[in-house]
Amino acid sequence: MSTASPVAARNGVDVPTLFATIDAVRAQPELAKFQFRATNTWVSGTHNRSSIQGFFGAGQEDASRTEPFAYDADHPAVLVGTGNGPTPVEFLLHAIAACLTAGVANIASARGITLTRLESTVEGDIDLNGILGLSEETRNGYEQIRVTFTIEGDASPERLRDLVERSRARSAVYDVLTNGVPVSIDVSA
Amino acid sequence: MSTASPVAARNGVDVPTLFATIDAVRAQPELAKFQFRATNTWVSGTHNRSSIQGFFGAGQEDASRTEPFAYDADHPAVLVGTGNGPTPVEFLLHAIAACLTAGVANIASARGITLTRLESTVEGDIDLNGILGLSEETRNGYEQIRVTFTIEGDASPERLRDLVERSRARSAVYDVLTNGVPVSIDVSA
Repeated sequence: MSTASPVAARNGVDVPTLFATIDAVRAQPELAKFQFRATNTWVSGTHNRSSIQGFFGAGQEDASRTEPFAYDADHPAVLVGTGNGPTPVEFLLHAIAACLTAGVANIASARGITLTRLESTVEGDIDLNGILGLSEETRNGYEQIRVTFTIEGDASPERLRDLVERSRARSAVYDVLTNGVPVSIDVSA
Repeated sequence: MSTASPVAARNGVDVPTLFATIDAVRAQPELAKFQFRATNTWVSGTHNRSSIQGFFGAGQEDASRTEPFAYDADHPAVLVGTGNGPTPVEFLLHAIAACLTAGVANIASARGITLTRLESTVEGDIDLNGILGLSEETRNGYEQIRVTFTIEGDASPERLRDLVERSRARSAVYDVLTNGVPVSIDVSA
């Protein structure tokens, strides 16, 4: 016999704790100041590896991650790499899908909607004449990103579509990708 | 006895092939049209998983990746997740470090500079009052990203620093993160 309440268990989201967390931040807004980090080490050629572990948030250094997450990136052979990982730009597509999806799950749970399916595909169009320096009219990055969701659950199609829209409106990655962010680069040589 | 030429082997970058690739695209610019893709499947709560495999480029569907790359994303417990992966926004930090690093390696090799060390750390500051809906003045995404490189090789500090600057000027991820990109979202419900 499970002791989990139906509300707490909905979609795997602990809804009471989610609301309690929002209330705690409302009472003490500085808890919401987070700093995330990655370190990257060059391996060879276009192959390099990032490590993601520590972050600051809720007023302290996180101690919950006892091991780092590690990710390789590389260019494929057609782009003169060794294919030991996806290209850096492909991780942007993962990031937006993951952010929107997490938001949909949270918002659905808060609204009492049980999801049975939530999948997405992301496509990014890029013209490499930009990064190859062959066209000054071509930007370096993606020209367009398209996200397509399939969502199923115990609510009307309109309410299910609205979950994605509300997630978009509060997505950190969507904000960064559509509006940009200041990036500073310092070099020790 | 290795048959690799010193030039081709520099930093693990096949420089003749790199220049040949640029020449091929110069002669046939449509080869530079690429489409990258990711698919994402919700697991539970804020935990979801992306798969990255196929892409279109150089005039055809890639066939070099025989297995997909798979990446989990999640929120940590302090953000009411289950910590089965980094947060989506942390993948943005990996992406920018990886993109700048690959560029530095390519440019160094093209210039005949041998690198002996190339490392970076990336920090992203975010105020979650935005995504929690507690402050309309706070943006959802990062307020600032800082990248710090350490680079060593057989060139002057000025030339080594210039490698990072030239990489920045041709980085796809730097362009997307600083300038933004149109993102469309479609939903099938």
